Amino acid sequence: MSPTSARIREVGPRDGLQAEHEFVPTATKIALINALSRTGVSTVQATSFVHPRAVPQLADAGEVMAGIDRVPGVTYSVLVPNVRGAERALDAGADEWDLMLSASDSHSRSNANRNTWEALERLKPVIALGLENSVSLVGGLATALGCPFEGKVPYSRVHDVVGAYRDLGVRKLSIADTVGVADPALVRDTMSRLHADFPDCSFLLHLHNTRGMALANLLVGLDAGVTEFDASVGGLGGCPFAPGASGNVATEDVVHMLQLMGIDTGVDLEAMLELARHMVPEAVGHVADSSVARAGVSWDLHPAPEKQQLA
Amino acid sequence: MSPTSARIREVGPRDGLQAEHEFVPTATKIALINALSRTGVSTVQATSFVHPRAVPQLADAGEVMAGIDRVPGVTYSVLVPNVRGAERALDAGADEWDLMLSASDSHSRSNANRNTWEALERLKPVIALGLENSVSLVGGLATALGCPFEGKVPYSRVHDVVGAYRDLGVRKLSIADTVGVADPALVRDTMSRLHADFPDCSFLLHLHNTRGMALANLLVGLDAGVTEFDASVGGLGGCPFAPGASGNVATEDVVHMLQLMGIDTGVDLEAMLELARHMVPEAVGHVADSSVARAGVSWDLHPAPEKQQLA
Repeated sequence: MSPTSARIREVGPRDGLQAEHEFVPTATKIALINALSRTGVSTVQATSFVHPRAVPQLADAGEVMAGIDRVPGVTYSVLVPNVRGAERALDAGADEWDLMLSASDSHSRSNANRNTWEALERLKPVIALGLENSVSLVGGLATALGCPFEGKVPYSRVHDVVGAYRDLGVRKLSIADTVGVADPALVRDTMSRLHADFPDCSFLLHLHNTRGMALANLLVGLDAGVTEFDASVGGLGGCPFAPGASGNVATEDVVHMLQLMGIDTGVDLEAMLELARHMVPEAVGHVADSSVARAGVSWDLHPAPEKQQLA
Repeated sequence: MSPTSARIREVGPRDGLQAEHEFVPTATKIALINALSRTGVSTVQATSFVHPRAVPQLADAGEVMAGIDRVPGVTYSVLVPNVRGAERALDAGADEWDLMLSASDSHSRSNANRNTWEALERLKPVIALGLENSVSLVGGLATALGCPFEGKVPYSRVHDVVGAYRDLGVRKLSIADTVGVADPALVRDTMSRLHADFPDCSFLLHLHNTRGMALANLLVGLDAGVTEFDASVGGLGGCPFAPGASGNVATEDVVHMLQLMGIDTGVDLEAMLELARHMVPEAVGHVADSSVARAGVSWDLHPAPEKQQLA
């Protein structure tokens, strides 16, 4: 059975903008985060305290965090890759830290220059610092639902990485379909087993729509008890392995479907659509890749035509 | 539980091409139908015996049917709106007739110049002729899952139209989300109730991806016992109420997801993708609007990069 409500983590300002080649001015980022914070999303993933040389787009993380208005009730999350980043995130007063780890070794080596367990080792002091400071921690598992280099990642691997996070005190995990290859059977199986194997943990899904399956995957996630989902306004963020294809599932597409199904997200869909159609394209210089931004909502009716046609 | 196999009705040559403004040459249509017939789809909806003035694009229906190769095991379906069309379809030796009726009165008036029951009245001699000649009949219910003029269509209306078809001897029904407004909760509810209320009928789903929900809707359809789906190569066919938005769900997107889920369609995905990427764009003069045609299949692996990045 589907739940009656779900929480949306808006990841456009970090995961989305990170994929943009043209630098988005700091003031534009701040305006976007502020606007997103007022749409009713539970969390805004605002920026990343990664090394500026690794992601020049987010080199202004500190200024962004200092410049935004904090809307009460909204969690401001940042990506934290290492102790240096954690210290900056603490200074910036981020509510939640997104920790990143690839479930597959080859993706981990490609992204972090070390295998999964070596990367976890490096996160240990970050986790300790976060727990010490009562920061909410989200243990990310990139490629948990498929790796561009290895293909399917065995459930046992996902289980073990979740278990390792859990043993370190991280109880909230983000299960990611990083390159949009997961299908509903895999998502159903993975999320059911994770809930059964780790009853004291909560799981969120990070889905990409690269092959059109994001909403189907989200649906089976809901059925398997997931109630928190990452999504990106205007579908910001592409797929590095499929140029021109969709990346992150669009927030407005998620909210639209859930609203039709009677599942409350608290998000003002009209406000989100307004951002997807205007503010986002102006910020990044190209149109939003989302079905609902293009087609409009299901409940907008059309006047019946006067002119009658031959049948 | 999901079934282990599903059947694909390829509707690109009729429902897809009908939305194209530029006339597609008869030889091109024939080549496309022949190629589609060899991909493993169970049915090809080849053309429409509608009045040539109503749909000039398909004015060559007779020549198309006379020109194609019939692949053994493939059902060749045509749209039949009236007795004149039925006689032409009989002459052409079509295996299956698609009957069209709108579940909502305003859509019926807009498309067929009469309300649903008046339109059904007009189909009666067509149905009689089909049954007399042992043609397979598919009773279409356009707007069954939502109407662009009226919004949600009550289940009681869908039930009554199915019942009327059934009483006339039509046991196979096509439940259509004509303008891509249905959500998974509606599809689940509708298909479960139809199966319960009409155990001697079979139902296929005709889904549009206008708001990104087609594969989610297909998934709940499968769970509710539907095993036959319309789909259109390259996503051919737009949505008249949302210019630029997606229309029919793309065959390759459907086959790709089902294949990942271990549900056999018999369709050669590589062959279908080849058509979506090359033959279809050449035929209609624009690219295919399908996720898998753009992004490639989930199981295509990438070489792990040599260059290692800063983390």
